Amino acid sequence: MGQGEDGWFTERDDDEGIGLTLRVRRKLHEEQTPYQRIEVYETTSWGRLLVLDGYVMLTSRDNFTYHEMMAHPVLFTHPHPRRVVIIGGGDCGMLREVMKHPGVEECVQVDIDEGVTRAAERWFPELCSANDDPRAHLLFEDGIEYVRRLEPGSVDVMIVDSTDPVGPAVGLFGKDFMASVHRALAGDGLMVQQSESPILHLDSLLRDVRTAMRDGGFARVVTLQFPVVGYPSGWWSATMAGKGGDLTRFRESDAGARAFTTRYYNCATHRAALAVPEFCRELLTDQ
Amino acid sequence: MGQGEDGWFTERDDDEGIGLTLRVRRKLHEEQTPYQRIEVYETTSWGRLLVLDGYVMLTSRDNFTYHEMMAHPVLFTHPHPRRVVIIGGGDCGMLREVMKHPGVEECVQVDIDEGVTRAAERWFPELCSANDDPRAHLLFEDGIEYVRRLEPGSVDVMIVDSTDPVGPAVGLFGKDFMASVHRALAGDGLMVQQSESPILHLDSLLRDVRTAMRDGGFARVVTLQFPVVGYPSGWWSATMAGKGGDLTRFRESDAGARAFTTRYYNCATHRAALAVPEFCRELLTDQ
Repeated sequence: MGQGEDGWFTERDDDEGIGLTLRVRRKLHEEQTPYQRIEVYETTSWGRLLVLDGYVMLTSRDNFTYHEMMAHPVLFTHPHPRRVVIIGGGDCGMLREVMKHPGVEECVQVDIDEGVTRAAERWFPELCSANDDPRAHLLFEDGIEYVRRLEPGSVDVMIVDSTDPVGPAVGLFGKDFMASVHRALAGDGLMVQQSESPILHLDSLLRDVRTAMRDGGFARVVTLQFPVVGYPSGWWSATMAGKGGDLTRFRESDAGARAFTTRYYNCATHRAALAVPEFCRELLTDQ
Repeated sequence: MGQGEDGWFTERDDDEGIGLTLRVRRKLHEEQTPYQRIEVYETTSWGRLLVLDGYVMLTSRDNFTYHEMMAHPVLFTHPHPRRVVIIGGGDCGMLREVMKHPGVEECVQVDIDEGVTRAAERWFPELCSANDDPRAHLLFEDGIEYVRRLEPGSVDVMIVDSTDPVGPAVGLFGKDFMASVHRALAGDGLMVQQSESPILHLDSLLRDVRTAMRDGGFARVVTLQFPVVGYPSGWWSATMAGKGGDLTRFRESDAGARAFTTRYYNCATHRAALAVPEFCRELLTDQ
């Protein structure tokens, strides 16, 4: 795993037997923080590449599908999102998408590792373009503790933009955390969490996230699917949970009339992300 | 490109700066035919892997998305497909999907390379399960010549399941071939062709295929998008063309009531495949 001498950065998963390789020109940055190893590469065709502990986090060219599909579907499913919390998301790309919604009055980003945000500010300034928005607040602390301390019912939308469930992020995938999010959300509040690849992790992490959400108290759970070139298999998911209501319905007229730019998201791709492939039907019962 | 000494098969595209790597146990088969080099590997997690001229064609585990999304959308868009022709498709996986439709009276598969079919029969017998269907006819000859000789208006659906537009398949992507397909199709006939990755090839091959179809006489062109893990970027497309009519409409009640098994395809994923991401809107004007 890492940069070979042949000019390609390779991420391989021995257990899944699959890996991605990206052609790189050079390493721009390397740093060991108290939490993880940060690397930034310049690629030949994908802009800059952010790597944490050897895993591809994003490239300049492909991150739009992930960030848009984690942010906009949940924000257009909630009737009137005003108070948003992002757990993780240190690269600030999610914050940028959330800040595109004029109705959002406050967005708190809580990442445990300030080093990621500092590296993003330097190497991915386009992702950090909303960091100075007066509605945005960047905290660097433990997200699990932060959510536990939140006033009950004080949040409209919680976006969990974490790394894989190893290392610092492992606690973000369990029932206790989900219960804590459930408590922090208002009655019509929604959460969304990245839930890995439908073809790789349907019967493991994706199922476990959904189970943890239900065990944490959420009555409704739906999983969105969309392409993410930089992640294993290129096929990714996000799982949305709410205390009630039909999460397959969203504010289509608002989404269609949105006054901001997207590259992947629109009403059609939002609906498309809710489609359930045959092999997922047994698991994805709410949609 | 090929099997490294580290036990991984890697396909890299220098120009696109991206590649896929699959963990392999051993090479099961290698053969140089008059047209291309065939390799079959046993992988650790993806079943068997078919490689032509160094390019991943399919794995046992992931080929269902490609074969189903190339076959069923076009067959459920046509009002009553009876006479089907597959150009390419030597691995026989497309033929198997087509033969699932009881209304199809005849399906002719025309691949230039008999070696691919013989290798598939040996190493991917599950893809060849319909080869003995009395409605199926396997020809091994040049597909371009075959289509040119077809009686005008004699085909309902033409599926072009080719390799990339290099080597033996290059002629299958040009205007002359499209005009020849147009002539062979009945008035309500439809064609579909794999058109590579929306994120990699939107302004190159995908655009060129659509232009060639229109220049070849087709009035309507729509592009479907779906995941294919084994192909570059994991995000693939198929472009469907017809002489008229709305190709975004399909026989939903028939598709919903289909009496055969699929793993990806259903009415929801068919509709989802027609969704146009924002960055594709300028090109995909018919849908």
